Amino acid sequence: MQASERLGSFVAASRWEELPHAVRHEGKRSLLNFIGCALGVAHAAPIEMALRVLLPLSGENRVTVLGRTEKLDPLGAAFINAIGGNLLDYDDTHLRTVIHPSAPVAPAALAVAEQRGLSGAAMLHAFILGCEVECRIGNAVSPGHYARGWHITSTCGVFGAAVASAKLLGLDASQTWHALGIAASQSAGIIENLPSAAKNVSVGNAARNGLFAALLAEQGYTAAPAAIEGALGWARATGDEPAVPEITGDLGNRWEVLSNTYKPYPCGIVMHSVVDACLALRQQVEPDDIAEIVVSGDQLLLDRGDRTVANERDARVSIHHCAAVAFLFGAAGLKEFSDAIVHAPAVVALRARTNARLDPTSPRGAATASVRTNDGRHLEATVLNAKGSMEQPLFDQEIEAKVRELAPRAGIDALFAAVWQIDALTDIGPLLAASC
Amino acid sequence: MQASERLGSFVAASRWEELPHAVRHEGKRSLLNFIGCALGVAHAAPIEMALRVLLPLSGENRVTVLGRTEKLDPLGAAFINAIGGNLLDYDDTHLRTVIHPSAPVAPAALAVAEQRGLSGAAMLHAFILGCEVECRIGNAVSPGHYARGWHITSTCGVFGAAVASAKLLGLDASQTWHALGIAASQSAGIIENLPSAAKNVSVGNAARNGLFAALLAEQGYTAAPAAIEGALGWARATGDEPAVPEITGDLGNRWEVLSNTYKPYPCGIVMHSVVDACLALRQQVEPDDIAEIVVSGDQLLLDRGDRTVANERDARVSIHHCAAVAFLFGAAGLKEFSDAIVHAPAVVALRARTNARLDPTSPRGAATASVRTNDGRHLEATVLNAKGSMEQPLFDQEIEAKVRELAPRAGIDALFAAVWQIDALTDIGPLLAASC
Repeated sequence: MQASERLGSFVAASRWEELPHAVRHEGKRSLLNFIGCALGVAHAAPIEMALRVLLPLSGENRVTVLGRTEKLDPLGAAFINAIGGNLLDYDDTHLRTVIHPSAPVAPAALAVAEQRGLSGAAMLHAFILGCEVECRIGNAVSPGHYARGWHITSTCGVFGAAVASAKLLGLDASQTWHALGIAASQSAGIIENLPSAAKNVSVGNAARNGLFAALLAEQGYTAAPAAIEGALGWARATGDEPAVPEITGDLGNRWEVLSNTYKPYPCGIVMHSVVDACLALRQQVEPDDIAEIVVSGDQLLLDRGDRTVANERDARVSIHHCAAVAFLFGAAGLKEFSDAIVHAPAVVALRARTNARLDPTSPRGAATASVRTNDGRHLEATVLNAKGSMEQPLFDQEIEAKVRELAPRAGIDALFAAVWQIDALTDIGPLLAASC
Repeated sequence: MQASERLGSFVAASRWEELPHAVRHEGKRSLLNFIGCALGVAHAAPIEMALRVLLPLSGENRVTVLGRTEKLDPLGAAFINAIGGNLLDYDDTHLRTVIHPSAPVAPAALAVAEQRGLSGAAMLHAFILGCEVECRIGNAVSPGHYARGWHITSTCGVFGAAVASAKLLGLDASQTWHALGIAASQSAGIIENLPSAAKNVSVGNAARNGLFAALLAEQGYTAAPAAIEGALGWARATGDEPAVPEITGDLGNRWEVLSNTYKPYPCGIVMHSVVDACLALRQQVEPDDIAEIVVSGDQLLLDRGDRTVANERDARVSIHHCAAVAFLFGAAGLKEFSDAIVHAPAVVALRARTNARLDPTSPRGAATASVRTNDGRHLEATVLNAKGSMEQPLFDQEIEAKVRELAPRAGIDALFAAVWQIDALTDIGPLLAASC
């Protein structure tokens, strides 16, 4: 059996009853985190602009755009909702591949489940299967794929969206296999475009095109048997010899969603240990008493974060800014990366007293903060595993708190209830009603 | 200036009045050939299936689907019309890159021109510019790109569709540059899928996504400055060090559309010299008198064409079938590749008396047909440049004849008139009326 054929069989045969409790619960956490991220940016400029393009093109049979009163045809809604989920890069992270698994997959699953009136359990099940296949294909081409210039969330996301859609449409094993192959001909998205709105387009397309692949397969469209892993297929065209066992090994026993993580801070993931190390020292020193902050870490941390800060985007990947706001405010949330805070005199001043230093012995993901005070004290804290890492996962209540900050609104508890009890919903109406 | 920045400036500044007559006329020939191909398959299964997916999703503001009474939103129509143009692989060929230039570009141009009521000259101008940019980017990554597994018509077509759309939408140089960069994040399509319907999806998406890129750029979406040629951009991600001078050299003086060719026979382009060589001998021998046909050519011809024939698809790339029908019918048109002819006993018998042989000295694109007759005669003909090649281009009337065979209908002369005089049309209504 071909790798993609095995995936098709696995997805078609998978039964909700067979999913372990921990897998189901992690799916709910991923979904809640995703919805919060999308709600938080529902009126951001890239969403408004894309809506201006898509609204006039949409047919009458429409589904929910998260956080909006307007609705769109399912392909258009999948596109917009994926952009929303990923816009702040505050969504979930599968650390091994750096895929943000939910943003391409959840929108496709939500669109089909809403349009066809399917149950909450069916939606969650399809979402988990989509994330599974997306991350397995990502594993098979990592780390070369991303390093070569492919935005892996987009390029692998389309497979996840295809799988989630195929499951909800009730496609059989062969149709699901073909949907994956059709998705392979729609996989796109490049790293060069990450600092621009063009990045949103490939993320949105991943959801849209995965759903489209499944809808075409439902009508009889086919793909080559080895579109993903074949000699002239997707993996090799994108530059990798695919590690096929990563795709098919231990299917149904190992679950990638259990490796999903959620950011506590809306900044680059390698900055999180910087924040935590500074927060650990904060009680021991007033900002005005700080003569110098030195943050040390490995080359990756310095490559990503040793930079001049001119705007919000810089701040999200700045060692200096993360350290400064942690000491000044004891927090590194949405507000602390806003333009107002980025340019606040106290923040600018403390950033200027912060230095980044290479420590080649520092483990990947770790950071050490050292503070020299005006009165000559020396404080130091090292964080090996930041909050939000696999080793220090967010509690459910911390994800809720994150969503509350992203999407402050009266009915937020109804959203939490709908997610935690989604497997009891006969349709996903209550979830969507709480997400508008 | 970046390569894509220069393209944006060139496209935005280009004026119809400056296009040489030969360039305009070749654009018309390409357009007519494209429309004929699309009309010929307007009710083929892949079109019907895709329409079943897209019709219910389409908004009310619709444009023409070639050869159909149904209309679709511009993105959907661009998708379907591109599939139609390319479905038989009977569309135009830019030989250096093997791009089929028109199928992704013309549908985008037609959709925008129809929806915004633009002139025939504006549509043709945008179409020519789109083909220009598409083929130049293709030149910059050929031949590695295709060899690595990328379906270059799809992957470069999206740039052409973006350019044609941008020109018709009146985007400025910067917006056009961004549209190209957004297209880079949507470029997809793999060789592995060529023998399947998934191929149609990437061709359709090239037109659809190019138009989408321009619509997003019109609303303010941006891309990275070097999305195409940058360090982590499209060309390098797909595996090539881009030959940037191919993109920007001699812009406005060298025109790629002048290198466009049109197939006289609906079969693999390297089979065309096989057909011509056999046609040249046909008057000298009755099929029943043929003891053996030997077709010789270079490795490429044999790699592509030395095969067992089980169906129409095989026949289109079979040396044996092309030789057999040329001798039996004196023709190699749509009918001669139909299933009925593929399985006709006389054809099966003559294919069985045909052999392919490697001649390493045979030039690329050439073929020699040798016939041994039952009465001991030996006939031989060599064709260096097949009908339809750059050296032996189809006459305008031959393109008309091809379109007549593809789309037999009463009003076909109105279509010819609309294309040849398209620069006099204040809107493209007459062209579309003749294409339904």
